[in-house]
Amino acid sequence: MNKLSYFRPAIDAMSGYTPGEQPKLADITKLNTNENPYPPAPGVSEVLKSFAADKLRLYPDPMCTELRHTAAGLFKLDIENIIAGNGSDDILTMIFRCFTDESRPCACLEPTYSLYPVLANIQGCEAIKINLNEDFSLPDNLLEQAERANLLIITRPNAPTGNSFTLPEIEQICAEFKGIVLVDEAYVDFANDSCIGLVKKFDNLIVSRTASKSYSLAGGRLGLAMADVQLIDGMMKVKDSYNVNALTQVIAIAALRDQGYLKSTVEKIINSRNRLTAGLIKLGFRVIDSEANFVFAAPPDGDGERYFNQLREQAIIVRYFPGSATGRFVRITVGTDEQIDRLLEFTSTINLGT
Amino acid sequence: MNKLSYFRPAIDAMSGYTPGEQPKLADITKLNTNENPYPPAPGVSEVLKSFAADKLRLYPDPMCTELRHTAAGLFKLDIENIIAGNGSDDILTMIFRCFTDESRPCACLEPTYSLYPVLANIQGCEAIKINLNEDFSLPDNLLEQAERANLLIITRPNAPTGNSFTLPEIEQICAEFKGIVLVDEAYVDFANDSCIGLVKKFDNLIVSRTASKSYSLAGGRLGLAMADVQLIDGMMKVKDSYNVNALTQVIAIAALRDQGYLKSTVEKIINSRNRLTAGLIKLGFRVIDSEANFVFAAPPDGDGERYFNQLREQAIIVRYFPGSATGRFVRITVGTDEQIDRLLEFTSTINLGT
Repeated sequence: MNKLSYFRPAIDAMSGYTPGEQPKLADITKLNTNENPYPPAPGVSEVLKSFAADKLRLYPDPMCTELRHTAAGLFKLDIENIIAGNGSDDILTMIFRCFTDESRPCACLEPTYSLYPVLANIQGCEAIKINLNEDFSLPDNLLEQAERANLLIITRPNAPTGNSFTLPEIEQICAEFKGIVLVDEAYVDFANDSCIGLVKKFDNLIVSRTASKSYSLAGGRLGLAMADVQLIDGMMKVKDSYNVNALTQVIAIAALRDQGYLKSTVEKIINSRNRLTAGLIKLGFRVIDSEANFVFAAPPDGDGERYFNQLREQAIIVRYFPGSATGRFVRITVGTDEQIDRLLEFTSTINLGT
Repeated sequence: MNKLSYFRPAIDAMSGYTPGEQPKLADITKLNTNENPYPPAPGVSEVLKSFAADKLRLYPDPMCTELRHTAAGLFKLDIENIIAGNGSDDILTMIFRCFTDESRPCACLEPTYSLYPVLANIQGCEAIKINLNEDFSLPDNLLEQAERANLLIITRPNAPTGNSFTLPEIEQICAEFKGIVLVDEAYVDFANDSCIGLVKKFDNLIVSRTASKSYSLAGGRLGLAMADVQLIDGMMKVKDSYNVNALTQVIAIAALRDQGYLKSTVEKIINSRNRLTAGLIKLGFRVIDSEANFVFAAPPDGDGERYFNQLREQAIIVRYFPGSATGRFVRITVGTDEQIDRLLEFTSTINLGT
C-alpha cells in the first residue's frame, strides 16, 4: 500500500477465509462443501409457509429462549449451558474474542478447519499448529505443544480428515489443559459418540455444534455452543445482541425437534459413506476412516491435485487442500448414492497409477 | 471472581449491551425499541411463502451478490462499494475489529447509541466521548476532541435524541479527520437528507444502514455499509463468511425493491411523528426536532424517569436513559396514530408540573 492504511496492521497483513466454491452450473455433482444432499425436516418448510411476515418488524428474541430450551432438552443440559450463534462461524468468532488476543495464543490441529488461523489473524493472536501423526491421530505431546495457548481447538470428527479421537483422549485434555478446550463437533451427528456428556464435568470445555450439516440448514445459519454457565455468561456479553434472526430461530426449532428425520437422513448418509469408502478402497485409494459426512481419500498415485482436476473436468466438484500432509488427498462430501456412483464409475475409468 | 478467569480481562471487566425490553404482554403499547408499526413490504411475505426450503441445505451466497446489486442500484454506487451484515450490529462489529484496538481509540457522540462503548470494550479500545451541546448539536471543537481516535462515529440522525447534523458539517469532518468517519444512518429514511452521496468523495467515509427500522425487518437482520472499495475489501476479510443467511438475502431484496411501499410507510410515520411532536409541545414538553422514527421529549417538570414510570403503569412502554444529558427526557418510538393518541390522551390527564 502506498499511503498509510486506516486498518489495524493485522487486518492489512491477513488474507480472508476462502469458502468452498458455489458454482452456478446446473449439471454439476457438488461434493465440495459438506452440504447435506437431503432437504431439511418437513417442519422447516411448514413453519416458513405459515410464518406471519408481520412479525419481522419486531426484533428477534435476543436470548433465543425457545431454541435454547429445545437444545437443552436434546442435550440433557440446562438452558444456561447453551448459547446460539449465526452459524458456528459466529460461535467461533465469539470464542476467539473472549479467550484470545496478542498475549493469549490459540492452538489447533494441523491439518484442520482452515478458518481457525484466519480468526486468529483477525484477533491478532498467535495460532500454534499441532501436527497430527501420519494417520491423523493426536500426537502424544499434544498438551506440551499447546501449553502456551489459552484456547485449544479439537475438531472432532476432524476436518478435512474425517477421523475422530477417543473420548478418553478428550477427557484427559480437558483435565490437564490450563485454558479453554473447544471441541468443534460440526460433524458429530455422523460420528459414533459426542463430548456433550463432558460439559457438566469440565468448566473449561466448550462443545460447538452446527445445523449446517446434519440438519441441512447451511443456508439458515445456526450454531450452538454448550459449556459451563460462567463461560456462556461471558460469551453472551460478546455476541451481537440479535445475532440469530427470527426466521432462523423458528426453522431451527422445527429441525431440532424432528429427531426421527435427523436419524433417517444421517443413516442414509452413513450408508453412502460406507459405499463410497469401500468403492474407493477397491480402486486402490487410501481412505481415512470417516466419522463425518465426507471422506478424505488419496488416489493410488498420491496425486490429490491431479485427481481433483480430473473430477472437475467431469463437473464433479470435490475439495483439494494443498500441503505436505493433505496434498495426497481430496475431500469428497458424501452426496446421494447416485452422486457417489457417478464419482466411482468415472474414477474406475481413469489411470491413477495402480 | 475467586479463581483465575479464562477470559480476556477486558471481557471480565465489561457489562454486555442491554437491548430494549421485549415484554411478553399482549395489551401493551410498545414504543421502546424503534420498531416500525407497519408490516414489511408485501413482497417479503410472498418470497417467504414461495421459498423452497430445500435450498436451505446449501450455504448462502457469501458475497450477497444479488442483494448488494440491488442496493447498488438504489444508492447509485458500485457493488464493490457495499458490504452486507447480519443487522447493522454485525456491520459495527466488523468496523470496530478493522479499525480499533488498544492503541486505536474510537470517538463517538454523547449521548448516542449505547452499543458503541460496548463494542469498544470488547475490542479493548478507548471510547472517547464527545459531549454534544445542550441542544444536542455538534460542538465546535469536535475534531479536536476526536483527534486521537482512528474511528469517529457520527450517528445521523442521532439516537436517542433524533436530531440530525448538516451535510456541510459532515463534509468538513470527513475532509479534516485523519481516521475513519462512520456515519450511522440507521434512521436516515425518516430524515431530510443522507450522506450516501459523499461515499464517492471521501475514501475515509463509511455510511451504514439497517433494514430494521424503515423496512420493518428488525427480525430479519440486515445491515449494509457503503464505502470506498479499499475499505469494503478489508471489511470483507473480517466478516464471517456466511454472515447473511439465505432467507434474509431474499426478503431484503424484496423489501429494497419496493421503494413505493417504503415511501408510503415512512410518510405515515413522519405524519404521526409530527402529530406526536405537536401534541407533546402543546402539553408543555420540550421536544427535540426529530428526523427519526422516535421523538426525544422532556416533560415540563424535567423528570423523565417519573414520566417513564407513569406511562409504564398504563402499559405504555417507552425508553428512559438515565444521565445528566438524557435524564430529563424519554424516547418515544413513533407508532401508529392510535398508539400516539393513547399516549397523548393519558399524558394530558397527569400533572407534570406545568
